[in-house]
Amino acid sequence: MIPRGTRDFLPSEAITRQRLIDKIRTIFEAYGYNPIETPALERLDVLTSKYAGGAEITKEIYKLQDQGERWLGLRYDFTVPLARLYSQNPQLGIPFKRYQINKCWRDGPLKLGRYREFWQCDVDVVGSTSMLADAESLAVTDTVFQELGLDIMIRVNNRKLLQGILEFSGVPIDLRMTSMLSIDKLEKIGVDGVKLELEEKGLPQITIENVMKSLSHKGTNNELLQSLKNKIVNDLAQEGINELEELLLYVDALKINSVQVDISLARGLEIYTGNVFEIFMKDSSLTSSLAGGGRYDKIIGHFSGLGKSESNETETIQEVPAVGISIGFDTLMDALTIHGKLEPVKTVTKVFVIPIIGKKVDSMKSGINMLVEAAKVASQLRKAKIPTDIDLLGRSISKNLEYANKNQIEFVILMGPREYSQNKIKLRDMKSGDEELISPEQVLNWFKSRFELE
Amino acid sequence: MIPRGTRDFLPSEAITRQRLIDKIRTIFEAYGYNPIETPALERLDVLTSKYAGGAEITKEIYKLQDQGERWLGLRYDFTVPLARLYSQNPQLGIPFKRYQINKCWRDGPLKLGRYREFWQCDVDVVGSTSMLADAESLAVTDTVFQELGLDIMIRVNNRKLLQGILEFSGVPIDLRMTSMLSIDKLEKIGVDGVKLELEEKGLPQITIENVMKSLSHKGTNNELLQSLKNKIVNDLAQEGINELEELLLYVDALKINSVQVDISLARGLEIYTGNVFEIFMKDSSLTSSLAGGGRYDKIIGHFSGLGKSESNETETIQEVPAVGISIGFDTLMDALTIHGKLEPVKTVTKVFVIPIIGKKVDSMKSGINMLVEAAKVASQLRKAKIPTDIDLLGRSISKNLEYANKNQIEFVILMGPREYSQNKIKLRDMKSGDEELISPEQVLNWFKSRFELE
Repeated sequence: MIPRGTRDFLPSEAITRQRLIDKIRTIFEAYGYNPIETPALERLDVLTSKYAGGAEITKEIYKLQDQGERWLGLRYDFTVPLARLYSQNPQLGIPFKRYQINKCWRDGPLKLGRYREFWQCDVDVVGSTSMLADAESLAVTDTVFQELGLDIMIRVNNRKLLQGILEFSGVPIDLRMTSMLSIDKLEKIGVDGVKLELEEKGLPQITIENVMKSLSHKGTNNELLQSLKNKIVNDLAQEGINELEELLLYVDALKINSVQVDISLARGLEIYTGNVFEIFMKDSSLTSSLAGGGRYDKIIGHFSGLGKSESNETETIQEVPAVGISIGFDTLMDALTIHGKLEPVKTVTKVFVIPIIGKKVDSMKSGINMLVEAAKVASQLRKAKIPTDIDLLGRSISKNLEYANKNQIEFVILMGPREYSQNKIKLRDMKSGDEELISPEQVLNWFKSRFELE
Repeated sequence: MIPRGTRDFLPSEAITRQRLIDKIRTIFEAYGYNPIETPALERLDVLTSKYAGGAEITKEIYKLQDQGERWLGLRYDFTVPLARLYSQNPQLGIPFKRYQINKCWRDGPLKLGRYREFWQCDVDVVGSTSMLADAESLAVTDTVFQELGLDIMIRVNNRKLLQGILEFSGVPIDLRMTSMLSIDKLEKIGVDGVKLELEEKGLPQITIENVMKSLSHKGTNNELLQSLKNKIVNDLAQEGINELEELLLYVDALKINSVQVDISLARGLEIYTGNVFEIFMKDSSLTSSLAGGGRYDKIIGHFSGLGKSESNETETIQEVPAVGISIGFDTLMDALTIHGKLEPVKTVTKVFVIPIIGKKVDSMKSGINMLVEAAKVASQLRKAKIPTDIDLLGRSISKNLEYANKNQIEFVILMGPREYSQNKIKLRDMKSGDEELISPEQVLNWFKSRFELE
């Protein structure tokens, strides 16, 4: 009864996911990124515009017409909405650092770990050309994974360098983008696979050999960049190398571990113009990437130009630099599950109040009063923000204790008419089994001190 | 460029809304409600099924077909998804207390304060027939509004009582539902308006007079219920009165203020079976309701019956009691704005680091180092979760101070080569203008003590 590729999250999972999102938000904000929120629906012409996600993604848009017969679509990422929002709000100025954590939708093929409704956690900086902005994208992402206890590897490359390598190798300008997409698969399909694809795309054999030779440079980051600097002598490549070198300077200063230059890394999207990043588990326990991003200095300017006359579109486009990274929340959850980093939680409730209500007709009156008194005790704790629940089913003591136990609720308060007539209620620590009799007036302080000690 | 009826939330507003949602979540959890999350998309047959939102809402569903040509729709509330989820997960058992705070969509007419993408905050309990569950819905809502400093009025009624009144007044059974919808407008269209509508719906004049007479009962909650108890002598009405009386007992115990029995209150939806609630500003500063809800004992059972054979549907339906309330987040924001309860926030950032970089070519080298050192200082604070930003534009000191000032950032750290060579950096309190020179090693502790003192 639930649409294919979508999921419900029942309390246990929803609590875990929500806490994780809170953690990520706190880290994003620590790095000075501010939240924004954009609608789930965007105009279809915005989602499919030239500098948006490209043909592959356009096929996967959930499309619909509203009552006014305007075509809309569900957003498939946060980059296009950011570009649209920023171009509509020139007062935002620069720098504009924002994060967005929420759902996106793609009506694509279902695979293991791929969903049609999925969560992304994006940070981006608009307006800065500084490589420090690029480094911050890596730093904030590295902090997220470190704090969650995941050991990651960050692969970086630079589109200018890759373009320069292709230029240097003799790849014609109109085949460079498509060649990059093949090169990006090096890890996946191997040298022979890439060669075959490049051949199919119409590259001459000699050019292919040149490309593969250029890509075969190895060594530490510094050795690699140094040797490329000496070999690939053209402006594009040199510019890309300089950018990577400056990036690595900040990476060292910020102590971001495991950053590795990988000159075959291209990333699927056409939008990137400078550094590109992709993040994986170090131990290859997951083949899919956990996060990815890079610098895209052309998209936002393009959106600002939208709506102006088509004829002089090229004139109106002004470059607006931007760089960011996107963490795939569902892949992150998978990684945390695989590495046993998630503590199972059953409920938010910490205290469960059980009123003991007699069955006999002549105790009915006092029974209802017991429920009222129990509700008052629960209310005290609730107003102090201690998550508290109360029996709403009139179950027996043993059924209620079983319920509290099954849901791993830490404390139970038992309220019976006999003790209550002596101004006493019973607290039970469900882990230790310890019980204590205290007066209803002491309850709040008793729990306050317990939960502050935690 | 943004779809009609939808909105972007820029940082200032997004921060406020997010903090408010966090506050509401904390209160919902304090009352023992657990989060769940359901997809934005539901199957259209689920959204339009008999016990769902009804014809008016069905017209407003954003509908679409996925690639497999299955009809889907965007959810318009959280009640239908709850019913669908609960019926798919019988292991959840009872009681099932959940909350959901998120977006819903309705492609309806645009009015002031009505949006096509809007937020709801829902709490519901499934599985309890106890009036204490109804009272909890009111208590948690009352706590939310109290903590936000809004003075509200809670109107309550009971569908059984209203049905009983209509039965007693001689309204034929097939006209009772539609009559209730007219009566619900009493406040809005007045006695004559209601009479006219009832006439148009085919009620005889004498019946209309009876209805209006029954509705004219006045007095305090207890007086009103007492007089109805004596006058409207049928089972339905008596049952409704008993339920309201028990509800009021808990309302008193939980000190929920401003609960007022209003026997004309019906609420639009057909789904309600017992108590109904609607919450307004006490000072009528907003005519629309802030929250509404009630008891609906039939929907969930209906969904559990779905998918079983149609012919014996009536046999398979088992009553699953449920009660809940929904706070309209956008109306809440309007109320807070009107009453000046929102503190404007510009950014999450609390500390802004300004590296002072010389312009001369011979200071270029030390300039870049200053940026690296500044990034290190920022990194220390960020890892301690103190929201910190750093100049990414290489602007002048005065431009940077202006930026920090405009964004109401509390502290600025100035890092110049001269002081830095003496192991000193300058802290500036932007409110007081006080400045202090400290060593980079002291920075973290200095801020930690500041922000803990707050």
